[in-house]
Amino acid sequence: MKVDGTPYRSIWLADDGYTVCIIDQTKLPHRFETTELLSVEDAAIAIRDMLVRGAPLIGATGAYGLALAMRADPGDANLEMAFKTLHNTRPTASNLAWALNDVRDILTPLQESEREAAAYNRASEICEDDVATCRAIGEHGADVIRKIWEDNGKPGRINILTHCNAGWLATVDWGTALSAIYVAHEMDIPVHVWADETRPRNQGASLTAWELSKHGVPHTVIADNAGGHLMQHSQVDLCIVGTDRTTAAGDVCNKVGTYLKALAAHDNNVPFYVALPHSTIDWGIHDGIRDVPIETRSPKEITHISGKTNTGDVKTVQITPDDTQALNIAFDVTPARYITGLITERGLCDASENGLLGLYPECAS
Amino acid sequence: MKVDGTPYRSIWLADDGYTVCIIDQTKLPHRFETTELLSVEDAAIAIRDMLVRGAPLIGATGAYGLALAMRADPGDANLEMAFKTLHNTRPTASNLAWALNDVRDILTPLQESEREAAAYNRASEICEDDVATCRAIGEHGADVIRKIWEDNGKPGRINILTHCNAGWLATVDWGTALSAIYVAHEMDIPVHVWADETRPRNQGASLTAWELSKHGVPHTVIADNAGGHLMQHSQVDLCIVGTDRTTAAGDVCNKVGTYLKALAAHDNNVPFYVALPHSTIDWGIHDGIRDVPIETRSPKEITHISGKTNTGDVKTVQITPDDTQALNIAFDVTPARYITGLITERGLCDASENGLLGLYPECAS
Repeated sequence: MKVDGTPYRSIWLADDGYTVCIIDQTKLPHRFETTELLSVEDAAIAIRDMLVRGAPLIGATGAYGLALAMRADPGDANLEMAFKTLHNTRPTASNLAWALNDVRDILTPLQESEREAAAYNRASEICEDDVATCRAIGEHGADVIRKIWEDNGKPGRINILTHCNAGWLATVDWGTALSAIYVAHEMDIPVHVWADETRPRNQGASLTAWELSKHGVPHTVIADNAGGHLMQHSQVDLCIVGTDRTTAAGDVCNKVGTYLKALAAHDNNVPFYVALPHSTIDWGIHDGIRDVPIETRSPKEITHISGKTNTGDVKTVQITPDDTQALNIAFDVTPARYITGLITERGLCDASENGLLGLYPECAS
Repeated sequence: MKVDGTPYRSIWLADDGYTVCIIDQTKLPHRFETTELLSVEDAAIAIRDMLVRGAPLIGATGAYGLALAMRADPGDANLEMAFKTLHNTRPTASNLAWALNDVRDILTPLQESEREAAAYNRASEICEDDVATCRAIGEHGADVIRKIWEDNGKPGRINILTHCNAGWLATVDWGTALSAIYVAHEMDIPVHVWADETRPRNQGASLTAWELSKHGVPHTVIADNAGGHLMQHSQVDLCIVGTDRTTAAGDVCNKVGTYLKALAAHDNNVPFYVALPHSTIDWGIHDGIRDVPIETRSPKEITHISGKTNTGDVKTVQITPDDTQALNIAFDVTPARYITGLITERGLCDASENGLLGLYPECAS
């Protein structure tokens, strides 16, 4: 999508053909900076420290991380070490494990001399596939939005609530939940987005608001606490969120707080949709609450926050009393029963095993 | 309660007998500062700018505000002007209107020469009544906590989730929801508090964490988004929150986000209690969602946040992109059907008209 008129993706190769370029998303929304990844360690740090985030982009960065490793040393031992280094950065996101396994399976049978080129080639394919997948999700999602807008009598504004950032910054381009919104906006449907702030990392208040602003989509940032009230007062026509991992039964593991919004949507008869590429589906897990491992992150993300001072520099401030204990749970699981539908690159389905298998019959065990 | 070993209330008279002293709660948790109110304008600013907050403390400050006005000019016109000035500061809190009406009704029939003394006297009574009320709420609430702890087999830790700050800083002393926790702590029940951060003003992360820390009650700050996950994983034994306004039917208008926690508690069979003094009950309102006016506050409370820098000074930083629109809804309404029980100074009751009238039969219309 565009940034100040220039088309960007969230990850791309430099003109030299091997340096991997990313947007340093930790600097957003106050500074737009790109940075170069020159080694597998750079890629691992970018994933771990969330310079890149969002399941599809993490997967793409992992794939390019293996390519950078093969450029340095294409031997089996280095392949294994690079795989482990990258795999250990973010335990919850299933796209990362998927992309790493995919690239490793391609590289393992090859001669060492062929591995660098094959890895770059496959990483590039993963990126192109992601762009096509996200655009397809956007088209199917925009149909959902259009239908609700038409059923409501084509009001002058259709209010869509989203949580966290499932936008183009979280993928290679377009996004998942926000792709639906971008495509609907293209279709001249008068979308207005309620962007949940998304504490503690504020991806909604910073990244979603930044993306939508750069693209010209009307939006308003709200506290995570406010969505229930807006739904009680008919100010939300539908919710669309992304997912980091989707179980075979249609449970959705997404940024913490998603579950609370799904409960409120259910209580107020607001449709609640989840947009996802097939790569987030974990066919081996059926009970999301019991079996999806949930990442706990640094308490400092709760006790401290960064922002721009009135002199324009970015500072971190402490918002709790000294020595306050905090627990930082990164994700939660929304049971399938609270989800109106899943929006995939193959179309819409029920949040259920039957629904998913209807779209992905080749995944039946 | 104590601050570094010294007993404090949240509002008191200076030794001169007329200057009203408060804790400037906007400075907490980074600085503990008291400030003096010398005029009705000072009192109105303290309420409007939230140097004092919490329904009972707002009421007490309003009462003392009328006393300060009577000291300056005890005439009818000034009484009316002071009433209006104070009344317009916070439209949602019913305690403020209650206290202002109560004091005005006492002053109106009096000679001008008697009004100052009568106003100070009544304001002091309102404070003493509040302390007794809050202690009684605490004793009834601690019984609820003790019973759940015993029913669970007296585990080494009972986890109580609370939202916002319904502590002694929100009242004259003890608090409402936190009074139950303080009394349970006194009774050696091993309480541990999950303190919701409570965006956008962070009353949980700052005030609740500060109070509990100063009093030695174990606690952990969590993002507002995290409570649902904790409840899904049996990490919350009960919730206790306060209320700014309670309808005759038992609906509860409290800090925005309370409703989302009540939904999660309901979904996970976690008891959800609301602690309240009778002064928050609005017998004239039956349908909370339809009829309680909800305050909208400055968007800047969402787009900017204050905290302590690493050099120890308090700075405000901007956390959204430049020119981001934000909507700041201050309260929401939790329907009575999601509330396990109301804890009042007269004991426990169902969140229903029958429940409330059983405790307050004199209020039947």
